[in-house]
Amino acid sequence: MNNTVATQPTKPIKPFKRILLTGAAGGLGRVLRERIKPWAEVVRLSDLAEMGEAGPGEEVVRCDLADKAAVLALMEGVDAVLHFGGISTEAPFEDIMQANILGVANLYEAAQKHGVQRIVFASSNHAVGYYKTTDMLDASMPARADSMYGISKCFGETMSRYYYDRFGLETVCIRIGSSFPEPANKRMMSTYFSYDDLTEMLRCSLFAPRVGHTIVFGMSDNDSVWWDNRYARHLGYKARDSSAQFAHKFPDTAAFPEKDDVTTIYQGGKFLLDGPMFK
Amino acid sequence: MNNTVATQPTKPIKPFKRILLTGAAGGLGRVLRERIKPWAEVVRLSDLAEMGEAGPGEEVVRCDLADKAAVLALMEGVDAVLHFGGISTEAPFEDIMQANILGVANLYEAAQKHGVQRIVFASSNHAVGYYKTTDMLDASMPARADSMYGISKCFGETMSRYYYDRFGLETVCIRIGSSFPEPANKRMMSTYFSYDDLTEMLRCSLFAPRVGHTIVFGMSDNDSVWWDNRYARHLGYKARDSSAQFAHKFPDTAAFPEKDDVTTIYQGGKFLLDGPMFK
Amino acid sequence: MNNTVATQPTKPIKPFKRILLTGAAGGLGRVLRERIKPWAEVVRLSDLAEMGEAGPGEEVVRCDLADKAAVLALMEGVDAVLHFGGISTEAPFEDIMQANILGVANLYEAAQKHGVQRIVFASSNHAVGYYKTTDMLDASMPARADSMYGISKCFGETMSRYYYDRFGLETVCIRIGSSFPEPANKRMMSTYFSYDDLTEMLRCSLFAPRVGHTIVFGMSDNDSVWWDNRYARHLGYKARDSSAQFAHKFPDTAAFPEKDDVTTIYQGGKFLLDGPMFK
Amino acid sequence: MNNTVATQPTKPIKPFKRILLTGAAGGLGRVLRERIKPWAEVVRLSDLAEMGEAGPGEEVVRCDLADKAAVLALMEGVDAVLHFGGISTEAPFEDIMQANILGVANLYEAAQKHGVQRIVFASSNHAVGYYKTTDMLDASMPARADSMYGISKCFGETMSRYYYDRFGLETVCIRIGSSFPEPANKRMMSTYFSYDDLTEMLRCSLFAPRVGHTIVFGMSDNDSVWWDNRYARHLGYKARDSSAQFAHKFPDTAAFPEKDDVTTIYQGGKFLLDGPMFK
Amino acid sequence: MNNTVATQPTKPIKPFKRILLTGAAGGLGRVLRERIKPWAEVVRLSDLAEMGEAGPGEEVVRCDLADKAAVLALMEGVDAVLHFGGISTEAPFEDIMQANILGVANLYEAAQKHGVQRIVFASSNHAVGYYKTTDMLDASMPARADSMYGISKCFGETMSRYYYDRFGLETVCIRIGSSFPEPANKRMMSTYFSYDDLTEMLRCSLFAPRVGHTIVFGMSDNDSVWWDNRYARHLGYKARDSSAQFAHKFPDTAAFPEKDDVTTIYQGGKFLLDGPMFK
Amino acid sequence: MNNTVATQPTKPIKPFKRILLTGAAGGLGRVLRERIKPWAEVVRLSDLAEMGEAGPGEEVVRCDLADKAAVLALMEGVDAVLHFGGISTEAPFEDIMQANILGVANLYEAAQKHGVQRIVFASSNHAVGYYKTTDMLDASMPARADSMYGISKCFGETMSRYYYDRFGLETVCIRIGSSFPEPANKRMMSTYFSYDDLTEMLRCSLFAPRVGHTIVFGMSDNDSVWWDNRYARHLGYKARDSSAQFAHKFPDTAAFPEKDDVTTIYQGGKFLLDGPMFK
Repeated sequence: MNNTVATQPTKPIKPFKRILLTGAAGGLGRVLRERIKPWAEVVRLSDLAEMGEAGPGEEVVRCDLADKAAVLALMEGVDAVLHFGGISTEAPFEDIMQANILGVANLYEAAQKHGVQRIVFASSNHAVGYYKTTDMLDASMPARADSMYGISKCFGETMSRYYYDRFGLETVCIRIGSSFPEPANKRMMSTYFSYDDLTEMLRCSLFAPRVGHTIVFGMSDNDSVWWDNRYARHLGYKARDSSAQFAHKFPDTAAFPEKDDVTTIYQGGKFLLDGPMFK
Repeated sequence: MNNTVATQPTKPIKPFKRILLTGAAGGLGRVLRERIKPWAEVVRLSDLAEMGEAGPGEEVVRCDLADKAAVLALMEGVDAVLHFGGISTEAPFEDIMQANILGVANLYEAAQKHGVQRIVFASSNHAVGYYKTTDMLDASMPARADSMYGISKCFGETMSRYYYDRFGLETVCIRIGSSFPEPANKRMMSTYFSYDDLTEMLRCSLFAPRVGHTIVFGMSDNDSVWWDNRYARHLGYKARDSSAQFAHKFPDTAAFPEKDDVTTIYQGGKFLLDGPMFK
Repeated sequence: MNNTVATQPTKPIKPFKRILLTGAAGGLGRVLRERIKPWAEVVRLSDLAEMGEAGPGEEVVRCDLADKAAVLALMEGVDAVLHFGGISTEAPFEDIMQANILGVANLYEAAQKHGVQRIVFASSNHAVGYYKTTDMLDASMPARADSMYGISKCFGETMSRYYYDRFGLETVCIRIGSSFPEPANKRMMSTYFSYDDLTEMLRCSLFAPRVGHTIVFGMSDNDSVWWDNRYARHLGYKARDSSAQFAHKFPDTAAFPEKDDVTTIYQGGKFLLDGPMFK
Repeated sequence: MNNTVATQPTKPIKPFKRILLTGAAGGLGRVLRERIKPWAEVVRLSDLAEMGEAGPGEEVVRCDLADKAAVLALMEGVDAVLHFGGISTEAPFEDIMQANILGVANLYEAAQKHGVQRIVFASSNHAVGYYKTTDMLDASMPARADSMYGISKCFGETMSRYYYDRFGLETVCIRIGSSFPEPANKRMMSTYFSYDDLTEMLRCSLFAPRVGHTIVFGMSDNDSVWWDNRYARHLGYKARDSSAQFAHKFPDTAAFPEKDDVTTIYQGGKFLLDGPMFK
Repeated sequence: MNNTVATQPTKPIKPFKRILLTGAAGGLGRVLRERIKPWAEVVRLSDLAEMGEAGPGEEVVRCDLADKAAVLALMEGVDAVLHFGGISTEAPFEDIMQANILGVANLYEAAQKHGVQRIVFASSNHAVGYYKTTDMLDASMPARADSMYGISKCFGETMSRYYYDRFGLETVCIRIGSSFPEPANKRMMSTYFSYDDLTEMLRCSLFAPRVGHTIVFGMSDNDSVWWDNRYARHLGYKARDSSAQFAHKFPDTAAFPEKDDVTTIYQGGKFLLDGPMFK
Repeated sequence: MNNTVATQPTKPIKPFKRILLTGAAGGLGRVLRERIKPWAEVVRLSDLAEMGEAGPGEEVVRCDLADKAAVLALMEGVDAVLHFGGISTEAPFEDIMQANILGVANLYEAAQKHGVQRIVFASSNHAVGYYKTTDMLDASMPARADSMYGISKCFGETMSRYYYDRFGLETVCIRIGSSFPEPANKRMMSTYFSYDDLTEMLRCSLFAPRVGHTIVFGMSDNDSVWWDNRYARHLGYKARDSSAQFAHKFPDTAAFPEKDDVTTIYQGGKFLLDGPMFK
């Protein structure tokens, strides 16, 4: 007798049914698009900008986060959210208010209405950019934003804290340092956050049994650091990279910065030079 | 002999040329209108609502804080600001965003452009309403808003911190407790802030030589308190009133609240019962 | 016309139906017996020793706290407990274990079974007697007992914390200083706790809407103090007495204590001289 | 020529003359029995239960820790104690009181009388089990026991602190996490404490020149941790193992625990489900 | 019969046999000369400058603190020291080193050799003058001197700490604010320390049973303060005066100081304007 | 065709023009002399003692740090200073005052006058030697010197703080542990600081873009440590060595130190045995 039935290659079971990635057309969104695929049957990608074709296991939805109805629809069937959407540089307050303040409010309202249980919020080191480069921060210290952009990130942290206290909707706020292929200047030797480490921090944030409302600094295991992640050690994140591999690009120099050079006095770097922008 | 020259009644010199009071038609705005007159030659009163006729030493200006151009005009010639404007109860986020978020952004931008040096910002205990009634807070602890309204107050605190770090524009953020003629319930025995004490705190905030960016809890010298003002003692504020005078209105009772009664577990009281409101 | 109906003198309504006072035959128990009457229709008095006749509004129950069944019966119909029972001086551990360890365990088990919602536990400064007289303590610092007696008080604090975390049964632990008619020595100038202030602290502990699990140091408003009650300010307690009224009894003297005199180095005073006692 | 005298194999000199291991028949006692042999000429094994034959360099003594005279005899000739005896799971309070409270009291009294200078006390993470799994603890924070068992461990920590303050008898209290061959569930990924790391921590605790009264959390170098051992770094302990090697047994899953699932909210895990047990 | 023997007026017994007051010719020295008489049979007055005739119960000794042999002789028969000697304003370092550094070293060496048990050291707010006027300090925070003078006071605090740790020689370091008849400017409204309050603080420092090594800020009960004396509450000091009585001399003014005016930014005031002086 | 032009060996460009190393004839000075050469075109070596011939890239200047004019000349043309000069063991105060107190004052005055921007100051663990070996220190805790030598190091830390606050002259104070080829005793297993790690810490201190005023503990990555360098992590220092490599030299021993052996109770070790020395 024949037993010719070919066994179907078994599709590996993925933990989530559907993860929503906002800001999918942005710098980090494009980096993450492939990396997060193993975590969900379907990755729903969203942005205001063009994101290209949906690949296998992808859904692509153009959406303005300031559009409440659209965001509500966007959240349909979603298990967890990686919120990288909104404006990611200094910009006029009016624009930031629409994208990063109303956008976050809409996102949380929609998530709560649809029963989403966990969000990872891409906050920023610019929420604390007015601390000094000789300070050591931890997540219990008051925020000190360095820009309209930074202020909007503080807002997101406050809003997400509320949704946790009020509804138990869990959020990990990642105050992302400098997540680029490599440090572009000496400052980034302290703030460098490799793509692999970012991905690992997202994984930990999504799969830890409980995260409550956690604020964590997004950084690799750099030699020089300004941030102490002690209050987020329950996440299980361990950095594998370090900016030390790029140290040769920034050889030791005796050219001390000027005493009043705010870009080296404060953690926020060049953000300190922008005034608050309004249209 | 004639001595007929009438002595002109000497007009007392007042410290400020012009103080701007926003929210002048609101509950506390109406209380303060007369009380602040000794501090400035001119008090400019502003609100979206009707404020009645301008009295001597008053200017009355209807103004929507969400209207940037109007706010810029409003700030002309102003030395110091008492910012009591905006929405002062829980309300749909969209409304709060216009009045309390865009409103604050417009106010600070205008103040900075006009060289205003000091603002007193009416923040609220609802910025920290998710702490427990058995907790002791101080100004260094992270905010935990209990409502959209509370979130907007956190935003104002963050924004004002930025303007101090960036421009040296000083602000005292007063997290006002319950500023009413008398406590309306047992909770307010802990949060009571008499009108006289509020006025004194405003006076201290305006006239201290330096305030930097100070967060202070607005309360009288009540027997039961949840807040420790240690970090604001440089202001020189000393409460003269206490809710103890109203203790007889809330006689001792053995009716313990239910174990899950959030209005007594958390400092925010009834604000805890509102969900986040959206239109 | 006749209007002969005599109006009955209205009996004032008292907050609690029944308060249980353990240790009623002890030093403080006898002081409190009359003072707590206004708070409950019935005061149930309990002790291992003779307590005399029950007066109006009193019930007298002889009870060994180490007798579980007896304690369970004792708790029947009780709304709140003032737990002053057990051994109140240094004693052999075996005795302390029965009275103060098993006694407390029995008390809490019985209270929880009968739905009692609040207990005031007479803890002691000897729970922290190994801190120095030049230290400033608050309730968040680790206990450092100075005796078997002090260890048993630490045990009671731990047990009551558990019952709050597990069942929401609220407790105020009062680390009583020196509650006597007047200070007997210089040390008690720092630890003095007048009977009136003790009574007021009990009143606050019983009638505050929420106490959770609060540890408070029992002391009057003395000039010299070792303890900071910041974390218990929600109770609303304000001392009205001070040991300063007895200052003339301890005139200034240049007789410095010996450098190795443990009774003046450590807060526990003479308790430091007892070794741990065992039978 | 004859040179037939066989050289005796030189017996290595061991640091201690006699170490007492209580609880030698228990889970960890059996693990440690062989491992601790290099540290002492004689290991005295003690338990209430059967421990088998004494091997070379062993003494086996059946002993009930609640029997004071027996414990006093047990301590004869002992240099240091590894106290693993008593009940190690939740049990009726009466039983725990005998084994873990009276047992510890007897042990310390006997140790002090015999001049023992150092004890390693097997405390437990259940002494702090009511902290949340998103909290980061250190040894200075107040204990929050999650069970009668946990309460008894707090008692042991308090008692040992007293013996250090009073007599200079040094103790290391190890709040043991989950010391098993491997983690049995996701929670133990955070609390895992390998047998090798436990052994190393015991070694450090015994041989550090000074330990005073040290509280240390017993854990391996796991990725996710809840405890910060900063205050015990003088011990010189460095974990060599990590639960990460078992990560594959607990694959990432999106099955978030229920919001009210106390076994994942609090560090104590399943201990939270037991009520306080009484006979 | 006559009974004419006149009763001798009994001389009140004074606590100390001999107190040494250094700096007796200085501003505060002259204030204290009479005030401290009730505390000692003999007050030995010392200064480099002329002090006038010795009155009853006084000894007057000219002495250069930089002269070791002279200081050793000066300490003969002394029970306690009030060390107000040395330079009390900004001066060239070389001079300060002789008077305030070598002087303090000589004083402590002599005191220890003669068995003196307690010293009150007149430190200064200029030991912490580089904190901001919006900061709240306590004695546990690192010193930040604002001048050579302030640095010498830090030195004295360090030296006295050593003598306490090494020999048990107790010291109270009083960081004196502005001890003058009245505040001379707005800054002194925060730092005012009345002569009566200074005297009371000295009394407390001399007569408290134990002081160990205590650092206390010397200030009255002013409305605006920068310093928190929590760690010195064991001294029993309670201020009776306040600068509030002088408030009318500094009417409210809207003349905000310039943003870069260091004399109002930092606590040290005008000391900030002096560079470090060297000969 | 010939291409015979020899390429000149390009001299590597070194970051600094001239670094001054004081104490060049001392123990660590001799170790560092060669190691620091790559950092500067010229290394100026200074000491009171003979230093041998100047090698290539070296300048040798005999100089008494207590000689102000000489120190001023010594600083001419210097970019950065490694201050290892002065007395490095316990010595009579008068000597220490000249070398370590006047010496440091002269050094900073000269550095400021010549516009030097950064100094690395060799402080010492003896600045905190009166903490216990079971304590965990960080740089925010008050100093507790264990000797005249330690007091002089505290003085240097205070002085350098002042120069940073007043002039922006940056300093890294390294509280050097035991920087020797290997640990000489068990205590040094905790304080060991390898020469390579010392060199690396100097490199970090010189080349970090900003150091402000940083206090860092100089130690290798030893298993047992007493110091937490959290506040200096911006320096980028990572230890590469550990005393663990020498563990075999200090085998485990059960010889507990005496209870009153101050050399093991306190971090300062044998320094605790010296009294304060005076000539």
